[in-house]
Amino acid sequence: MVNLYNDERMDYLLNDEHMQIIQSPTAFAFSLDAVLLAHFAYVPIKRGKVLDLCTGNGVIPLLLSKRTKAEITGVEIQERIFHMAERNVELNHLSDQLTMLHGDLKEMQPILGQSNFDVVTCNPPYFKTPSRTEYNRNEFLTIARHEVYCTLEDVVKACKLHVRPGGKVAMVHRPGRLVDIIELFRKYKLEPKRMQLVYPKRGREANMLLVEGIRDGKADLKILPPLYIYEDDDSYTKEAEEIIYGM
Amino acid sequence: MVNLYNDERMDYLLNDEHMQIIQSPTAFAFSLDAVLLAHFAYVPIKRGKVLDLCTGNGVIPLLLSKRTKAEITGVEIQERIFHMAERNVELNHLSDQLTMLHGDLKEMQPILGQSNFDVVTCNPPYFKTPSRTEYNRNEFLTIARHEVYCTLEDVVKACKLHVRPGGKVAMVHRPGRLVDIIELFRKYKLEPKRMQLVYPKRGREANMLLVEGIRDGKADLKILPPLYIYEDDDSYTKEAEEIIYGM
Repeated sequence: MVNLYNDERMDYLLNDEHMQIIQSPTAFAFSLDAVLLAHFAYVPIKRGKVLDLCTGNGVIPLLLSKRTKAEITGVEIQERIFHMAERNVELNHLSDQLTMLHGDLKEMQPILGQSNFDVVTCNPPYFKTPSRTEYNRNEFLTIARHEVYCTLEDVVKACKLHVRPGGKVAMVHRPGRLVDIIELFRKYKLEPKRMQLVYPKRGREANMLLVEGIRDGKADLKILPPLYIYEDDDSYTKEAEEIIYGM
Repeated sequence: MVNLYNDERMDYLLNDEHMQIIQSPTAFAFSLDAVLLAHFAYVPIKRGKVLDLCTGNGVIPLLLSKRTKAEITGVEIQERIFHMAERNVELNHLSDQLTMLHGDLKEMQPILGQSNFDVVTCNPPYFKTPSRTEYNRNEFLTIARHEVYCTLEDVVKACKLHVRPGGKVAMVHRPGRLVDIIELFRKYKLEPKRMQLVYPKRGREANMLLVEGIRDGKADLKILPPLYIYEDDDSYTKEAEEIIYGM
């Protein structure tokens, strides 16, 4: 049994009766972005070590645990949300595989060392520094969504520090930041090798971007077929449904 | 009347009865890439100056002349192919609007000055330096397709030199070079603002990339809906047909 606080609720994770997740509309609720990243990222099947930065309530480690037996570590900077992640591990009886850490991704080296992970995943804050009003309205969501505690460069730098040479880094972000991402991945020797663009509907501009780099990899990017989320009638496309309910 | 030499032939340009183009299977024949770039690139409608680097037989200036009254200059390094471009201008009675120059894109400053164009387009060689055997087999095609006389960096540098601040640079290339393109565009202050990926068919990886940068532009990339070329039965998709036969 785990406790719920404030406005927290317990949801089934996607359509899985065996997996539940604690969320909060005012502190942290996972989005489609996290689900797509957990599907896109390469993970070793049987053994290895995976790190998820900006883990929030641990949704990506929870989803990845269905695809891999590797040890997964999540790092979250906001204490209240870290506690949700910890309880999510307990709730799903995954303490043998998943470890949640409360900390700043810029300062994890004393605990996690260097080059110790086969894969690093991250669904970072998308937006630049928020206004003071925005921040005061909802601190939790603002920190999760804006570059309050870490910039995109901090995130990429941390990915590089923790992934082993030849290991993979997978990230989800907005197309508007693709140029920054590619520049920073190159700067930190995480060569982009695989990219997929996500479109809300056919005929629309892309609104999400999945990218995977290999530390010290050779230059050669593959761009996967585009992924459409909704049909014109707002129902999920078959491909989106397979990802969301197939995990 | 213009003359044809060697194995040159005269084709209608796309389905336009009013526009013809001299091509040669062993020296230079335009590809779909050029057609897509001529469709993708922004051009001013009434006045202005457009530069097309690596112009080949002048296919991009010819196609652009249907969309704009701007003056268009093409630059081609291979003398034999430059002569095809010159005759293509004459053949289509476009000498008032189109000028073809024989020269090396790295050395055009004495003739073209600096920052003198509103738009620069380029369909550069895609591949790295060829083998000697390849080069000996067909020098013309090898120079057009491989980085024999200019690297991608030379091309981007020339685009930057000739486009005015706030002007646009449009390029077609392979997805495998996207990371290099973005890095070089940033390096030469041509901020990527608009990108489209071209897929041969649904469900396949992208095989072509259209990108437009703005000199000294603010960072914010838009990724247009994907473009599919063929249906499963190998006929053109409706969207490809509209581009190819609508120009």
